[in-house]
Amino acid sequence: MNMFTPQFPHGGTGGGAPAPVRPHAPRPHGPRPHGPQGPRPGGPRPGGGRRFGSSRPPMRRRNQKVRVEHASPTTRERQRPNAPIPPVAENAVRIIPLGGVEEVGRNMTAIEVGNDIFVLDAGFQFKEDDTPGIDYILPNTSYIEERRDKVRGLLISHGHLDHIGGIPYIIDRIGNPMIYTRRLTGKMIQKRQEEFAQAVPVQIREVEKDEVIKLGNHAIRFFGVTHTIPDSMGIIIETAWGDVVFTGDIKLNHKDGEPSDLEKKEFSIFKDRKVLALLMDSTNVWQPGFSIPESVVYVTLEKIITNAKGRLIIAMFASHLERLIRVMEFAEQNAKKVVIDGRSMRTNIEIARELGLIKYKDDTVIQVEDLQRFPPEKLIILATGAQGDEFASLARIGNKSHKFIRLQPEDTIVLSSSVIPGNERAVQKLKDNLSRQGARIITYHASDVHASGHGNREEAVWIHKQVREKFFIPVHGYHYMLRVHADVAEELGVARANITVPDNGSIIDIVGGEKMVKLSVKAPNELRVVEGHTVSELSDVLMRDRKALGQEGFCVVVATVDRRTGRLHKSPDIISRGFVYLRDNKDLMDQTRLIIRKAVEQSMKNPRAADLDMAREDLAENVSRFLLMKTQKRPIVIPVIVSV
Amino acid sequence: MNMFTPQFPHGGTGGGAPAPVRPHAPRPHGPRPHGPQGPRPGGPRPGGGRRFGSSRPPMRRRNQKVRVEHASPTTRERQRPNAPIPPVAENAVRIIPLGGVEEVGRNMTAIEVGNDIFVLDAGFQFKEDDTPGIDYILPNTSYIEERRDKVRGLLISHGHLDHIGGIPYIIDRIGNPMIYTRRLTGKMIQKRQEEFAQAVPVQIREVEKDEVIKLGNHAIRFFGVTHTIPDSMGIIIETAWGDVVFTGDIKLNHKDGEPSDLEKKEFSIFKDRKVLALLMDSTNVWQPGFSIPESVVYVTLEKIITNAKGRLIIAMFASHLERLIRVMEFAEQNAKKVVIDGRSMRTNIEIARELGLIKYKDDTVIQVEDLQRFPPEKLIILATGAQGDEFASLARIGNKSHKFIRLQPEDTIVLSSSVIPGNERAVQKLKDNLSRQGARIITYHASDVHASGHGNREEAVWIHKQVREKFFIPVHGYHYMLRVHADVAEELGVARANITVPDNGSIIDIVGGEKMVKLSVKAPNELRVVEGHTVSELSDVLMRDRKALGQEGFCVVVATVDRRTGRLHKSPDIISRGFVYLRDNKDLMDQTRLIIRKAVEQSMKNPRAADLDMAREDLAENVSRFLLMKTQKRPIVIPVIVSV
Repeated sequence: MNMFTPQFPHGGTGGGAPAPVRPHAPRPHGPRPHGPQGPRPGGPRPGGGRRFGSSRPPMRRRNQKVRVEHASPTTRERQRPNAPIPPVAENAVRIIPLGGVEEVGRNMTAIEVGNDIFVLDAGFQFKEDDTPGIDYILPNTSYIEERRDKVRGLLISHGHLDHIGGIPYIIDRIGNPMIYTRRLTGKMIQKRQEEFAQAVPVQIREVEKDEVIKLGNHAIRFFGVTHTIPDSMGIIIETAWGDVVFTGDIKLNHKDGEPSDLEKKEFSIFKDRKVLALLMDSTNVWQPGFSIPESVVYVTLEKIITNAKGRLIIAMFASHLERLIRVMEFAEQNAKKVVIDGRSMRTNIEIARELGLIKYKDDTVIQVEDLQRFPPEKLIILATGAQGDEFASLARIGNKSHKFIRLQPEDTIVLSSSVIPGNERAVQKLKDNLSRQGARIITYHASDVHASGHGNREEAVWIHKQVREKFFIPVHGYHYMLRVHADVAEELGVARANITVPDNGSIIDIVGGEKMVKLSVKAPNELRVVEGHTVSELSDVLMRDRKALGQEGFCVVVATVDRRTGRLHKSPDIISRGFVYLRDNKDLMDQTRLIIRKAVEQSMKNPRAADLDMAREDLAENVSRFLLMKTQKRPIVIPVIVSV
Repeated sequence: MNMFTPQFPHGGTGGGAPAPVRPHAPRPHGPRPHGPQGPRPGGPRPGGGRRFGSSRPPMRRRNQKVRVEHASPTTRERQRPNAPIPPVAENAVRIIPLGGVEEVGRNMTAIEVGNDIFVLDAGFQFKEDDTPGIDYILPNTSYIEERRDKVRGLLISHGHLDHIGGIPYIIDRIGNPMIYTRRLTGKMIQKRQEEFAQAVPVQIREVEKDEVIKLGNHAIRFFGVTHTIPDSMGIIIETAWGDVVFTGDIKLNHKDGEPSDLEKKEFSIFKDRKVLALLMDSTNVWQPGFSIPESVVYVTLEKIITNAKGRLIIAMFASHLERLIRVMEFAEQNAKKVVIDGRSMRTNIEIARELGLIKYKDDTVIQVEDLQRFPPEKLIILATGAQGDEFASLARIGNKSHKFIRLQPEDTIVLSSSVIPGNERAVQKLKDNLSRQGARIITYHASDVHASGHGNREEAVWIHKQVREKFFIPVHGYHYMLRVHADVAEELGVARANITVPDNGSIIDIVGGEKMVKLSVKAPNELRVVEGHTVSELSDVLMRDRKALGQEGFCVVVATVDRRTGRLHKSPDIISRGFVYLRDNKDLMDQTRLIIRKAVEQSMKNPRAADLDMAREDLAENVSRFLLMKTQKRPIVIPVIVSV
C-alpha cells in the first residue's frame, strides 16, 4: 500500500508506522509579523490620520496607488428580496441616516426632496471588535445607488476621516457626483484621492460658508461651526417647509459657558429662519455641563512649550489641525525647532500651510535626521500615535525601533489626546514603554492638554435654542448617545412625536412639514466593508469563523481508508494551529488518533455502501466531542477522509 | 486512477472533473455560539464576580467540580537554562513581586527573610488582548515552588479575585501552605475552593487585624485598610531591620481630603514603628487629587433609591460588597424588595449575611420569578454585568433573553461601576441595548454612582507620610502607574536609590537594612495561564497563530499527484475558513488551482528525485504569495501533497 500513501505536510512521509505529528515545525507559510520595514502592499494609509481602532494599518508601497475593487453582488445579496420602498411623496422631505447612528464613524445621511437627493458626508469607520480582519466599514449606499440619477451633490461638512474616508470607496458607486465643501476639506479630499487609482477623478466645487448655491431645485446654505479642524461647516437645505439643518461635528468655543462672538454671529442666521428639521452631532451630549474649550488647551500647551527645559514630544491626532497650527505658532514664538514625525501629520500641516491657514518660517521645521544639531530645550517633536497605533511614530519611540529618536530621561511627552474607546490597552502599553525609558508623561487626566471636538450637553442645549427646530433627528453616535440627545431636545420643547432616534437605514419622512413618519421598511443597511482593496458586503460566516479561530484554532484530521476493506491504511494525521501546542500534547494526539480510527472504521464498516459525507460528519462530530471533553476547547474540525 | 482519488470534505467526491469548492457548506463541526443555555463544561465561574476583561466566561455544569490539571513541563521549559539565583544573604530581606506589577491583576509578592518565605496574595488576571483564547493568567510561582520548604504561609489581604483568584491553581504547586487572612476573605476563599475538585483541602487560619502571629522566625501584624470589600487589611512583617509593610488595595474614606478617624487610628500604629520597606497599591496614583469617597456614592444611591418612582435596576461588581451591603440597607429603609440577579452577587451577599456583616429580613429578598407580585416602585433588582459581560444578568435584560425581566420605559438603570479598560465597546453595546427599550440609564459620568476602590495621588501622599518608609516598591499596576507612584515617593523624601520600580520576577534585596539591590537575574516570569482546566506556560506560537487566524483565516490546499508521472490527478482542493468567502470568489479559487498545479508539477518534474518537503514548502510559498497579491490577506496556508 506504501505507494499510495498520501504525504501530509506535517504528518508522516510514508510507511506504515504512525506518523509523527509536527504541526508547528517547519512553520508553514502564513502571516509574518508586519514589521515597520516590511511594506504591506496595497491598502490606503489614510491621509487624515487614524482616528479609530485597529492596530494593523494596511500599508502601501510608496507611490503605489490603491486600486479599489467592488465585489460583484453575492448570492446572498442577489437573493435577498428587496423590500419595496415607497417613493418619497411630493409633499415630503425624506431623511435617511445611512451611517454613523449606531456607531461613532462612517457618517452619511441622504436627504431626498422631490427629484433631488443630497448626500451629506461620506465617512468610514475603523474595524470593530465584531469585524476582525476588516480594514474599514462603509455606509451602505445601496439606496443612493439605486437612485443615482437624483443625486445633486455630495456635501462634506469637514475633513475628518469619519466624514470623508468613504469617498474613494463609494464615489463611483453613487454616480461620481460633484463634491461641495470648503477649501481645506476639498484639498484634503483631493490629496487623499491621489493615493487611489481612480477611473474618474473626483470633481470638487469649493464653497464658502456665506455662499448660497442652487442644486437641483433647492438652495443650499452653509454656516461655520467650531470643531477641531478649520473650515468645519454646517449645511442648510432650503425646502418648501423650512430648512433642513445639519451641524456636522460641533462644539462651542465657550468661556465659562458663554459661546464666542463668532459662534453667536454664525448662529444668529437662524433668528430669521424657519427650521423644519435639525440633524445634529450627538457624540458627547451624554456628558454633563460644558466641554473643556480648546482655548484652555492652547493656554496649557503654550505654558508647557514655553517652560520646557528639555526636549518636548507632543503626540496628537494628525486630524486635530487647529491644535497643530497653534503648536507651530507657540514653537516659533519660543524660537524652537519642530520635527513633524508622522506622514499624515506632515501632509496635513503642509496642506494647511499651502492654504495659508498656518504660517511658519522654512527653518522652523527641521528634518528628524538633524535632531542632534539642536539643544534639547529648543526642540519639539510632533508625533503621531497617541492612540497606541503599533506603527506610528510614538510607538516606535516607545519600543526603541525609531530610526532617529531615542528617549532621554529629561524628555517630556505630552499625550494631547484622549483615548478612543477600544484603544485603552494599546495606550497603556505605549505609556508603559515610554515611561520605562524614564521620560515624563503628561496626559489629559492631570492637565488640560486635550479637549474633545464634540460638545457636551449644555453646548447642545445652546445650539438647540438657537436653531429652534420643529423636528429633530440626533445623528453621530451610538444609540445611547442619540437617545440622551433626544431626551435633551424633548426637554427643550421639541414634541416627542417630532423626534426620531434613527438606525442606519431608517427612512424618515416629514410630510407636509407637519408630520414625522418613520417607515416600517429600511434602506439596505447590511455592513459594507473594505478588506484589502475590495469593497464587499460583510460576511457573517467569515466573521464567526475568524472569531472562533482566534480563540480556539483549527484541527484538520486526515484518515486514509482502504476502499475495499474499510480499514485505515495507517495512523491518521492531525494538523492543527491555534488549538493546543501539539508538541506538548502527545498523549492527547495519540488518543485522538484512536478516536479517528474508531469513527472512520465504524462508518466504513460496509465500504461499498458507505456514505462518505456522513462518514466525514461523524468523524468531525466524534473528534470535536472528544477534544472538547479533554481540553474544553472547540477548535474548528475539518475532517478529511482519503479513500484509496 | 479514479480508485485512488482522495475524498476531501468540501472538495470533490471523486472523478476527474474539477472539484466544486464548498468550503462553508455543510458547516463542519466547530465552535457554536455558546448560548446561555448551553453549559460549557468545566472552568470555574469565579465566585467573586468577573472583574476584568473577557466576554466568554468558561461555564460549569451545576455541581460539577472543576479539576485542575498541571501540564508537565514543556520541552521549552525543560531546556531553558535556569539562571542561577544566588540565595538570599543572611543580612538581607528579599522582595519578589511575582505578579501584578506589569498589569492590573494577578497580584502576588514573595518576601524571603532568612529561612522563611511569606507569600502575599495569589490573584489571577483575565485574559488580555495579547492572550486570545486564554481563560486566566497566573503569577509564575516557580521561584516559590523551588523553595517550597521555606514557605511559612500565604497571607491574603482581601477577597477580590485579583488577590485570591489564583489560589485553586497554585496552592498545591507551592506546597499547600496555611492561608492566613481575615474572616470574610477566608470564607470567600473557602467557598470558591468548593467549586474545585482538590486533592488536598485548603487550610485557612483566620486572623484578626489586631493580632500578632508568629510564622517561622518572624512576627506578622495586620492593619485595617479602606477598600470596597469588608475585612481588607494591610500586612506587616517584622524583620531585624524594620517592618516590611504591604498595604493591599487601598483608598481613603476621606471627607474633603481629611481621612476618617478610623483610618487615622489604623495608621497611627506606624508612629512608633520603624518601616524598612513599603509595598503599596499604585493603581490610581496617576490620577490627581483625591478619589470620590465611597460615602458620597452612598448618599447618591440612597437618594436614587428613596426617590425612585419606578423599578430600579442597579448593576455593579459582585465583589463590591461594601456597596451591596449599603444598597440592601437603603432598600429596607424604604420598604423595597430586592431581587439579587446574578450567582456571584448572591453568593457574596449570602456569605456577608452569614458572617453578620449585613442584616436584612428574610422577605426583603424575593425571587426573580415573583417580580410581578410587587409594584414597580417597590422593587430593586441588583444585577451583575455592568461591564457588558455577555452572559450576565444585565446583558440578558439588554438583549431580551432574560427569562423573567423585561424592561419597561419607566425603569431606571444605575450602572454603579466604572468601565474597566478593554470593556468599553461591550459596555457601549449594553447601554445601546438597554436604552433601545426606553429605560433611563444613570452612569458615573453624570452622577456620583461609582467610586474607585483605589486612592488617587493625594491619598497616596497621606499614606506615605504615615508610614515613613525607608525603601519603597510600588506594586499593583502597569509600569506607568508604578513609575508615577515612584515619583510621588521620591517627592516625599524617599531617596531615589531606595526606590525600585519592579517587573514581574524582579528580585530586590535590601541588604543590612541599608542598601537596595535589584539583582540582574530575575525569578522565572514566563506567563502561566489557565486554559480549560489546564495550567501551563503560555505558548507564544499558539498566541501568534490565534491572532493570525483571527484576522486572516487559513487555507488548506490539497494536491493529489501521480508518483510516477509527477502530474496532478485532478483539480486541487482548497479548504478555507476565515479567509475570504469562497463562494463569492470562484475566480480566485480557479486561479489558485492553477497556481497549485503549476507549483506542484514544477517540484515533481522528476518524481523519483523529488523532495516532498521542499515541494510542500514551494507550494505554500507560491499560494501565499498569490493570495497576498490578490487579496492583501495572509491566511495561514497548509500545503498537503498526496502522492498516489
